[in-house]
Amino acid sequence: MKTAIEIVPSYIQDAWWTPADGTEGTDARDASTGEVLARVSVEGLDLGAAVAHARGVGQRELGKLTIHERALKLRELAAYLNDRRKELYEVSARTGATKIDSMVDIDGGIGVLFTFSSKGRRELPNSNVIVDGPAEVLSKDGSFVGEHIYTRIPGVAVQINAFNFPVWGMLEKFAPAFIAGVPTIVKPATPSGYLAEAAVRAIVESGILPEGSLQLISGSARTLLDDLDYRDMVSFTGSATTANLLKNHPNVVRGGVRFTSETDSLNAAILGPDAVPGTPEFDAFIKSVVTEVTVKAGQKCTSIRRVIVPNELRSAVIEAIGARITERVVLGDPRAEGVTMGALASLEQLADVRSAVETMIAAGGELAFGTLDAPAVTRADGTVATVDDGAFMSPVLLSWDDAEAPEVHGLEAFGPVTSVIGYDSHDGDVSEAVRLAALGAGSLVATVCTNDPQTARALVTGIAAHHGRVLMLNREDARTSTGHGSPVPHLVHGGPGRAGGGEELGGIRSVKHHMQRTAIQGSPNMLTAVTGVWHTGAQRIIAGDPEFGAVADAVHPFRKSLAELAIGDAFASGLRKVTLEDITAFANSTGDTFYAHTDAVAAEKNPFFPGIVAHGYLLVSWAAGLFVEPLPGPVLANYGLESLRFITPVPAGDAIRVTLTAKKITPRVTDEYGEVCWDAILHNQDGEIVATYDVLTLVEKENTLYA
Amino acid sequence: MKTAIEIVPSYIQDAWWTPADGTEGTDARDASTGEVLARVSVEGLDLGAAVAHARGVGQRELGKLTIHERALKLRELAAYLNDRRKELYEVSARTGATKIDSMVDIDGGIGVLFTFSSKGRRELPNSNVIVDGPAEVLSKDGSFVGEHIYTRIPGVAVQINAFNFPVWGMLEKFAPAFIAGVPTIVKPATPSGYLAEAAVRAIVESGILPEGSLQLISGSARTLLDDLDYRDMVSFTGSATTANLLKNHPNVVRGGVRFTSETDSLNAAILGPDAVPGTPEFDAFIKSVVTEVTVKAGQKCTSIRRVIVPNELRSAVIEAIGARITERVVLGDPRAEGVTMGALASLEQLADVRSAVETMIAAGGELAFGTLDAPAVTRADGTVATVDDGAFMSPVLLSWDDAEAPEVHGLEAFGPVTSVIGYDSHDGDVSEAVRLAALGAGSLVATVCTNDPQTARALVTGIAAHHGRVLMLNREDARTSTGHGSPVPHLVHGGPGRAGGGEELGGIRSVKHHMQRTAIQGSPNMLTAVTGVWHTGAQRIIAGDPEFGAVADAVHPFRKSLAELAIGDAFASGLRKVTLEDITAFANSTGDTFYAHTDAVAAEKNPFFPGIVAHGYLLVSWAAGLFVEPLPGPVLANYGLESLRFITPVPAGDAIRVTLTAKKITPRVTDEYGEVCWDAILHNQDGEIVATYDVLTLVEKENTLYA
Repeated sequence: MKTAIEIVPSYIQDAWWTPADGTEGTDARDASTGEVLARVSVEGLDLGAAVAHARGVGQRELGKLTIHERALKLRELAAYLNDRRKELYEVSARTGATKIDSMVDIDGGIGVLFTFSSKGRRELPNSNVIVDGPAEVLSKDGSFVGEHIYTRIPGVAVQINAFNFPVWGMLEKFAPAFIAGVPTIVKPATPSGYLAEAAVRAIVESGILPEGSLQLISGSARTLLDDLDYRDMVSFTGSATTANLLKNHPNVVRGGVRFTSETDSLNAAILGPDAVPGTPEFDAFIKSVVTEVTVKAGQKCTSIRRVIVPNELRSAVIEAIGARITERVVLGDPRAEGVTMGALASLEQLADVRSAVETMIAAGGELAFGTLDAPAVTRADGTVATVDDGAFMSPVLLSWDDAEAPEVHGLEAFGPVTSVIGYDSHDGDVSEAVRLAALGAGSLVATVCTNDPQTARALVTGIAAHHGRVLMLNREDARTSTGHGSPVPHLVHGGPGRAGGGEELGGIRSVKHHMQRTAIQGSPNMLTAVTGVWHTGAQRIIAGDPEFGAVADAVHPFRKSLAELAIGDAFASGLRKVTLEDITAFANSTGDTFYAHTDAVAAEKNPFFPGIVAHGYLLVSWAAGLFVEPLPGPVLANYGLESLRFITPVPAGDAIRVTLTAKKITPRVTDEYGEVCWDAILHNQDGEIVATYDVLTLVEKENTLYA
Repeated sequence: MKTAIEIVPSYIQDAWWTPADGTEGTDARDASTGEVLARVSVEGLDLGAAVAHARGVGQRELGKLTIHERALKLRELAAYLNDRRKELYEVSARTGATKIDSMVDIDGGIGVLFTFSSKGRRELPNSNVIVDGPAEVLSKDGSFVGEHIYTRIPGVAVQINAFNFPVWGMLEKFAPAFIAGVPTIVKPATPSGYLAEAAVRAIVESGILPEGSLQLISGSARTLLDDLDYRDMVSFTGSATTANLLKNHPNVVRGGVRFTSETDSLNAAILGPDAVPGTPEFDAFIKSVVTEVTVKAGQKCTSIRRVIVPNELRSAVIEAIGARITERVVLGDPRAEGVTMGALASLEQLADVRSAVETMIAAGGELAFGTLDAPAVTRADGTVATVDDGAFMSPVLLSWDDAEAPEVHGLEAFGPVTSVIGYDSHDGDVSEAVRLAALGAGSLVATVCTNDPQTARALVTGIAAHHGRVLMLNREDARTSTGHGSPVPHLVHGGPGRAGGGEELGGIRSVKHHMQRTAIQGSPNMLTAVTGVWHTGAQRIIAGDPEFGAVADAVHPFRKSLAELAIGDAFASGLRKVTLEDITAFANSTGDTFYAHTDAVAAEKNPFFPGIVAHGYLLVSWAAGLFVEPLPGPVLANYGLESLRFITPVPAGDAIRVTLTAKKITPRVTDEYGEVCWDAILHNQDGEIVATYDVLTLVEKENTLYA
């Protein structure tokens, strides 16, 4: 933890750095007391060297690890930070954050690391080339095939963050970049950058991350974009004004820097016509609005700014929100017992919010709850007083007769402020609510509160394209919902238009945003070489029946551990004839007496069958019998099957054979085994394809268990 | 076809429009003869009205159709245009295009419609909400779930195209927009816009498209961006300079217009160290370079501009390219017999290219083949003459000693011009080739020519992140490859950095680029209502065993045609006990005698099994027996199975039961049946999940066949 008047250090080129003196810098202050905590300055810092370090050392060191190895490091890091949470909470309180605010920020950030670690290992290959979508055969003979791959961008991820979530804001962007293998330079916002610095210090002390993977700029980085080009990516969170300034940089416009932004927006909460007072939906709605207005003192880019309700419910909604605030909200220094709402981040922030509210009142907003005067607050020592040294503000509710006033939909007071407007919902029609919500011109999130599925469908499909996220609130999820204001790591965070047009989180979606998608074309052998995944038509070494391509000395691939198994190792069985007796016996033993297997007349009438045919399940069961190696060995289990398609029906008298080829090998970083995906193809006696599928098995890394 | 000096009309608000007079316009000329063909002007055109028409009428009419219905219309349109190809070929010849050039443009464009029609129907749902990825359970009790959906953007797709492929360039952007349900305003390039106009005229005459789905601006649309906002999308193809100008527009920077561009780039072809003269790879490489330099007179954004070869092969490569050009290329009016290379698009274009080559020669490029003087050309009447009224230019080969000269990697002569540079490939190392290729700072496409898989892997993974597409050329695909310069509809077209950062085509990838991805959260019932796909935990009506939720009067869903079947219709079986005898019999009849089913001692040692367990294939076969309706009915076939996972093993003595729920219904627009995807879940006697999978069936729209 920093003591006062020190300069917040930066972490550049794997070393801590502080300017010679901080005279050019600004002060970071305690939000509740105004006390100066530290100076912020990066005077003399060589930003170009930081970029070069990331592109050079960072890319090199991260490239030595696979996706799974990097994902596992995130888990280690998450566990490490979890143990050091307490220190971070102490620093966090100085930013005006209550305990719950800090939990959202710190535990939330650590949670993102855990989620990305597990998703990265479960949903991505254990390599550095991600295949996107199926291969496309581009020539009749199958010798020319196309496919898409993702490989990491060859530069640096520059992350410019907002003041409100110094830890979560950093980790939620760092995690996907790190898994992709892209080094990060993080630039937190000045007012709360000392908390980000404390977190980075802990990360560095953990010793878990490879060299060059994380650098920290504690201060202004106005010229950072001068050093970036199309290889790099900037993820900006903050005001639209700053975002636009950066977007205008020649290196973005002409240089191709990948620029993505998440700016605060005028998020809506819409109450359905069915959700009248007395329904669980009405209660859930009020609760949600109050939470969003007061948590983090309303300084959340996802906060509810527009409360859109049926005209006839407007006054009931205002009354209920006001009553709940009065009952539940205790404003004060977050270090005091019982305080549920803290200060704004700074006195400047307070002045901005007050001025925005004044503009809104002048434009027709009625102050329906709260005050712009200095409110009574609980101080750290427990006393209550009206103070103006801290950045405290009362929650404010504005009621508008003109639902379309531009100030409702365009002016954001980034504090505990929300507007209530009405819509005409006669006959349950919600199209006016949809139209009003869209006036926000692109938002991060909206809540739709109704228990009527048709209303939900109309509202959600109507507003979805204007939003990054839509939460449907009803009695079924009111208690279990993670809330309007909380992005979750599994789902995308960001929105179109005013919300910045970016997309963060969303599980591996954001990992891929740190990668370039490239179409590759070539022969099956070449696609196999590049992707590490076997492609139909590529070379293989076949064991089994010599009549179907097996070579004499080839070993059944089921006898090979991951250490021995190679992509393209295959097994081809001989033919096994299917008789009517087999089909009948299978029908009787399984109970699957579907007419296509039992009734010749009815079966012949079916457009897809020539008459009685073998069950698809018989075919795959027999195939297993044809390819299996009965004795214990490194193949531990067949845990599943993918993409099974029955192509040519098999009538009695036909015969089938199977060919199995090692297609994809994924050793687990945490276990003594890994997944092997086998390409399975069934042919009949004429060489026609009967069925295709993937067999999923668990295979030991070494021959241990049954050796 | 237009006759000379008419003004090329625009098609706006579903009507043809021509300005009162064309005095403010420019001339469009025949590329080979210089003859004035038409005037181009949109003086007085109300662009704002066109945008409003698209957003209003276009969105409304397109929204009345589902994705599959729109996709089918594309097929109808493709067939219609196919019949009118001949007219378009005649117009195309005037742009300087040879028959092959026209084929690439016209047949290529029609081919995109066919591909997108079939992909749209095969790979997307028959609705207007596309689900992206699996549902994510966000609460312990499953009552709160998250998911992603795509819905169309609520505006217009503005497509600004280049002069070189007036038909393909239009249709390849129109197809994905149309399938997504987004209306198009197309603005072709002035020099060849009369060909786009001819194509739009045919499209309009077909009467196939809904009102408002396509508008054409035949002329400058400089102020069009003034009318756009975050709801709209601009897809630009052309020069980087114009792209940057548009990107700087306040409605892009501040207004959130979705802007994507595909600009020409300095694409490379890399020869591997193994591909020495005499190998099939060397020959394929030379052939490819000559094709790319001469097709469309080198006016292709994908043309090869940088030929990167091992130092010791540079002179051999230059010699071979020169020899092949001399032998094969006949320059002239495309209407003359035997001509294989036509004129540049205009005299202005010719002047630009010549000047670029002069700059390159001044910078150290050696003119190794060709001339900047007026070349001998075959005229339309078959005579050969040296002319300077047409925009003809000889193919030009520049050889560079300095492989890193900025002019090689940064200056593009958009004509039949390419540079040859060498790299040091000692010991087969290709890292210098990778480094040189990256100096292009982002390209659309590169060719990698080698028959060595390791070289291919090193080159492709090295350069992929700098490219939108990489073609691997070797003896296996040299004859079947679609070529370096040809984007295919299945694969993305576009590239990072200098190439514009856009992504077109790529099958349904580009459809999704016309949609907004939105995270939705809610209870299973609400997610089901919005997506039309049943979600685990949502309501259902169960037939079957009352002990497992069946209601008395529910009909087995297999007895329902698509007209009767609803999402959530389900069947629950009773329990069936598995005995050791069953397992043994199944092992014997299928031949699957894997030790886990036959050898208690070995099975117990396996970390995943408690001892002998039933075959997974036995379980799914029995499940079919449990859920099947044996008698003929609307369910015609079980054509496949997806995402099968075995969760809990089933030892002898356990029992299993199955629940099947109608999850996704996709009626085919072209058949009397459709696909139904059933959620299948197997439980044991303790209610533990044994296996989960999706069963895929074909079901009649009406009860017809067996009624």
